[in-house]
Amino acid sequence: MKILNIYVRKKKDVGAIERELEANLQTDHALLTETSMHLLKAGGKRIRPVLVLLGGEFGTYDIERLKMIAVPLELFHSASLVHDDVIDDADTRRGQDTVKSKWDNRIAMYTGDFIFAKGLEIAARLEDPRVHMILSKALVEMSIGEMEQIRFFYHTEQTLRDYLLRIKRKTALLIAISCQLGAMVAGADEYVSNRLYSFGYNVGLAFQIRDDILDLCGTEKEIGKPPGSDIKQGNITLPVIFALQDEKLRGPILSEIERIQKVDGQTDVSRVLDMIRGSGGIEKSSALADRYIAKAIAALDTLPNIRAKQDLIQVAHFIGNRTH
Amino acid sequence: MKILNIYVRKKKDVGAIERELEANLQTDHALLTETSMHLLKAGGKRIRPVLVLLGGEFGTYDIERLKMIAVPLELFHSASLVHDDVIDDADTRRGQDTVKSKWDNRIAMYTGDFIFAKGLEIAARLEDPRVHMILSKALVEMSIGEMEQIRFFYHTEQTLRDYLLRIKRKTALLIAISCQLGAMVAGADEYVSNRLYSFGYNVGLAFQIRDDILDLCGTEKEIGKPPGSDIKQGNITLPVIFALQDEKLRGPILSEIERIQKVDGQTDVSRVLDMIRGSGGIEKSSALADRYIAKAIAALDTLPNIRAKQDLIQVAHFIGNRTH
Repeated sequence: MKILNIYVRKKKDVGAIERELEANLQTDHALLTETSMHLLKAGGKRIRPVLVLLGGEFGTYDIERLKMIAVPLELFHSASLVHDDVIDDADTRRGQDTVKSKWDNRIAMYTGDFIFAKGLEIAARLEDPRVHMILSKALVEMSIGEMEQIRFFYHTEQTLRDYLLRIKRKTALLIAISCQLGAMVAGADEYVSNRLYSFGYNVGLAFQIRDDILDLCGTEKEIGKPPGSDIKQGNITLPVIFALQDEKLRGPILSEIERIQKVDGQTDVSRVLDMIRGSGGIEKSSALADRYIAKAIAALDTLPNIRAKQDLIQVAHFIGNRTH
Repeated sequence: MKILNIYVRKKKDVGAIERELEANLQTDHALLTETSMHLLKAGGKRIRPVLVLLGGEFGTYDIERLKMIAVPLELFHSASLVHDDVIDDADTRRGQDTVKSKWDNRIAMYTGDFIFAKGLEIAARLEDPRVHMILSKALVEMSIGEMEQIRFFYHTEQTLRDYLLRIKRKTALLIAISCQLGAMVAGADEYVSNRLYSFGYNVGLAFQIRDDILDLCGTEKEIGKPPGSDIKQGNITLPVIFALQDEKLRGPILSEIERIQKVDGQTDVSRVLDMIRGSGGIEKSSALADRYIAKAIAALDTLPNIRAKQDLIQVAHFIGNRTH
């Protein structure tokens, strides 16, 4: 990962969050500690904690309080990935074995439950009812989104709207509330935390669209898993939806997807990847991601011109252009 | 189920909770509504909500506020059963198909996640930080207990202490906080809510011991699932631990359990059930359950002699003697 300035500037506080993440997953149950640390130790960009810290700079910055929301948000993200891997039947994530492939589905389910509950426990220390209201609503939406994802597997008739609603629930909401809660916990005005929510929401949509593009166009080294994983498991993403709008390609892509579904994804998908890459669907998706990045940055317009604002803009551009 | 007076006396409020449970599981996602209502519609005694109501009578009773904790506690219980069924590979629960057998494991996992998040969302409406502190700590313990259960499958060397710690996490804690939170939300003294916690904790231990006895001694009609389900899946319960202390039976029981494990529980278990039933392990377990019931009732000694106290004693006796 390209090191953004923000990681340099916030090195100490990001480090404190990292230690807090580790400390909170220690239990007297060796297997549970091992499984729950497994994904965490594989790294990840800690984007949600970083957004909490930046949000916090719009109010009275207190790392001790910000930690109590940054850590839960990273844990919720982590828990949802562990559960996702059960659903996705994924064997690798962040370049290493998933919990469900290294142990089994049942262990992955309970590991996710534990990480999730731990996040709640830490957030409860803030003693702020607004935080629970926002967190719990987001968690409900996320779980509906997870179910939606299953419903839409191999569903080639879905619309752009179906896709956007799904990635809103799956990705954008948690990123949005990371920005919002950072500011709220730091006592910033509601206007500010709402603007930051809007920033995070749009960045989150762009982030997921980029992620879906990378799954189709990245190399295994770049993305830490084999390309085409989405289509193998029936996850119809934005570039595919756009590619299916091409009259000439529609038929051949549909029959490839049907063939993939018949063998439960246990097949080479390079033909359909080539068709999608050649369809213009990537460019269209990329253009939509750019529009969300622009909307995200515009949401910051009226906020005070502090260092954190420049950093958020940098994060947005980084996400808009990310290649891994 | 024998109708306890409490269900008659509290019919209106139990009905209100029932409607609230149903209303909160409605979503615009038909499958999710169906899966999450599935277990709920099969009934259940709603013991946790009833305990909340009784706890509430020790303070300023307000059904609108009590609902906001009774409903989440029943939902957490329900979510944990849905996840348990994935682990237990259970096909029936409360006399009907489980979510995981009617749909699949992935759907059961996300249904549990959704029900769980919904519970949090409702509890957040109380805007009481103490509630979140207590709930989240219990949820962490419950998830550790779930993992412990897997670790101890077919583990015939476990001690009474291992078993008690496991059922504390699996069952007793949630029942304990049901009593405690009912009183707390109604503004009762901390002394009162702590006494009620202790009552619920001991009742919860007795409840799980009775449940484990029933799994060995009940009929399929009585318990809504085939007897011996626990031992089939490797869940070594208290009567088995006691039976294994019998020098003459130890060898034969161990070899039966080994045989069952080898075929992953896909076998007739009537031989081992007969051995356990004949071992005195049932009577010893029953005696321990009785001791916890006595401790539960003793915990109420110093509380004001209101109607709810008599009802709690009745609930304790009911649980101590339950045969289904």
